[in-house]
Amino acid sequence: LQPRALAAQESVFARTSREAAARGAVNLGQGFPAAAPPAFLLDAARAAVGRHDQYTPPAGLPALREALGAEFGVDPADVLVTSGATEGLQTLALALYPPGGEVLTLEPAFDVYGPQAELAGARAVPVMLALDPQLGWRLDLDAVARAVTPRTCALLLNTPHNPTGLVFTPAEVEALVALARAHDLWIVSDEVYDELYFGPRPVSPRALAPERTFVVGSAGKRLEATGWRVGWVVCPPGLASSLAGVRQLASFCAPTPFQWAVVRALPVAREGGLYGALRDSYAARLDILAGGLEALGVTVFRPGGSYFLTAHRADWSAAALMDAGVAAIPVQAFCSQALNVPGVMRLAFCKSEADLALALERLATMD
Amino acid sequence: LQPRALAAQESVFARTSREAAARGAVNLGQGFPAAAPPAFLLDAARAAVGRHDQYTPPAGLPALREALGAEFGVDPADVLVTSGATEGLQTLALALYPPGGEVLTLEPAFDVYGPQAELAGARAVPVMLALDPQLGWRLDLDAVARAVTPRTCALLLNTPHNPTGLVFTPAEVEALVALARAHDLWIVSDEVYDELYFGPRPVSPRALAPERTFVVGSAGKRLEATGWRVGWVVCPPGLASSLAGVRQLASFCAPTPFQWAVVRALPVAREGGLYGALRDSYAARLDILAGGLEALGVTVFRPGGSYFLTAHRADWSAAALMDAGVAAIPVQAFCSQALNVPGVMRLAFCKSEADLALALERLATMD
Ligand SMILES: CSCCC(=O)C(=O)O
Ligand SMILES: CSCCC(=O)C(=O)O
Repeated sequence: LQPRALAAQESVFARTSREAAARGAVNLGQGFPAAAPPAFLLDAARAAVGRHDQYTPPAGLPALREALGAEFGVDPADVLVTSGATEGLQTLALALYPPGGEVLTLEPAFDVYGPQAELAGARAVPVMLALDPQLGWRLDLDAVARAVTPRTCALLLNTPHNPTGLVFTPAEVEALVALARAHDLWIVSDEVYDELYFGPRPVSPRALAPERTFVVGSAGKRLEATGWRVGWVVCPPGLASSLAGVRQLASFCAPTPFQWAVVRALPVAREGGLYGALRDSYAARLDILAGGLEALGVTVFRPGGSYFLTAHRADWSAAALMDAGVAAIPVQAFCSQALNVPGVMRLAFCKSEADLALALERLATMD
Repeated sequence: LQPRALAAQESVFARTSREAAARGAVNLGQGFPAAAPPAFLLDAARAAVGRHDQYTPPAGLPALREALGAEFGVDPADVLVTSGATEGLQTLALALYPPGGEVLTLEPAFDVYGPQAELAGARAVPVMLALDPQLGWRLDLDAVARAVTPRTCALLLNTPHNPTGLVFTPAEVEALVALARAHDLWIVSDEVYDELYFGPRPVSPRALAPERTFVVGSAGKRLEATGWRVGWVVCPPGLASSLAGVRQLASFCAPTPFQWAVVRALPVAREGGLYGALRDSYAARLDILAGGLEALGVTVFRPGGSYFLTAHRADWSAAALMDAGVAAIPVQAFCSQALNVPGVMRLAFCKSEADLALALERLATMD
């Protein structure tokens, strides 16, 4: 086997879910919702099964590209449909990063960014978000600027940010875009949590630099159907068809019945206020988990978006939490260098209120 | 964009389907069945939607790995589930082929083999199948042996073979396996048409060399649901987890509800005789198309398996057939060198009898 296969680690998300199941722990590790997708989406999927069961074009079902074009205000020809956001990110790595190129990522970072850059013969250059043990995470714009070299080819942003929950301010996005412009960098903007925010609405760099920004999105995250494998990339004008040529070497096309379901569901979700209802429901669960943790003497960094919070206490570790019956992911697992604050964990609050209550009960036994 | 993206061509299959739709042609180009998947499979999928909608592990739903382990007589831990066979092939390219490595392929060849090898920094070395204008295709074992170099790392087989429909004889498979053993090559065996044969049952090289053979399979091809994106790789012992580590960088996991549907459907298909019924139904359609073409003075090479036949006549070309209202794929599109017989086309007969009849009617107007 090749080094990249031998070196490949089991995904920390998959591993945590597996261990949680084996140990009977409440799974606040991997980010998938407890709830089933909304009924209108289930109906649309069941109706598509038996009617739309064969390949779509690799670039996506034309009707879905149209729906996404309308959603994002772009030409449908500039939308690529993928089998989940992860495949969109892989496609971008292979299409954009040159051999020897450097991709700036913001650490802690989602686990696939680095290995995908390596597939392309490039590498991720991580820039740490600043972490204050009391105040939490902050984007260090100077550190990003200092990390640019002549080999830098892209800025990989993620807002709302996983695992920290940071939502970059309009001024920060503006500064990052200015940096990308100054050095002629692509912007890969992972926005899978775009509809999941608890303060100001996230600003996409695409609004400022549509000519250089690729926005990666996810029907799984928006519609609580992470196993349906429908994602997308909104591309600068004229580039989606080349991306489709790369992407057809992976899963060839996204699952057809679910592409149809998403066509039907996107306008219903928007007009029916689904995203707002989800935000309200997640905000309530965030309050339950964050409030409960604070009552246990845990320092909580409340997220501006995503369905994760990060938190720490001196005696916390993944093993200690697992022993107490709660699975969570150490933020260190998202980093290539040692964090300056020990014991920082990421906890997903996209779970049932009952599970959140049970987790808090179990964590209370750690005292 | 990187050269691999700029060079990427639209898939010949997708292009042909698009042109067929635009021109109102009968689509005998891309290989997807006219029929909907069997009712028991639709039921299983509709039942899974709303119950199993979140991620599975990247290696696959454990229940599906078990069902496939039983199907192939291997440990479930040695099965990898993928988002279609194409992703399985990509994963193998990235996991097995070293930079500078050479992969022997049999041309005409399925279009992704070469570009996927290049993703890994390797390249495909095509060995032509011998084509006699009257007798059709034949494996040239000597040519395969002559193509081996010190850089050869793998033999990419495909039986039943797309586009020719060749099913390699047991003696041929034995000789290919002996060659792989002698030069310590991996065997990547694309067997997506394993249940679709019209003469002797195809022999898998895995039966002879399980320690070096990866078998790529497809629920889409077996169960007439090419848009559901469930495929698999049966691996030599101990290697599937490393492959999962590579594969989680592409689509992360295959669509969950369809993985469940395939779990339910595999034993029903086998015990209920679905594969035999499909063979009968395809054999009947093969007879209709081949007989009809022969009546038009076309030389037909009848396939031993797959749902394609190849055929030629002096005045045939993709453009001429399209002008007559029939979409088909020139076998030249599967080759990197010029074919010794002009006008050889691949026609898919996995279409409705009505469409086959209409195609024949239109082809008759070419006289
Ligand atoms: C693709 S598995 C990871 C799910 C997720 O986004 C997370 O847990 O961070
Ligand atoms: C993955 S699209 C190609 C379908 C097919 O196997 C063919 O037409 O050869």
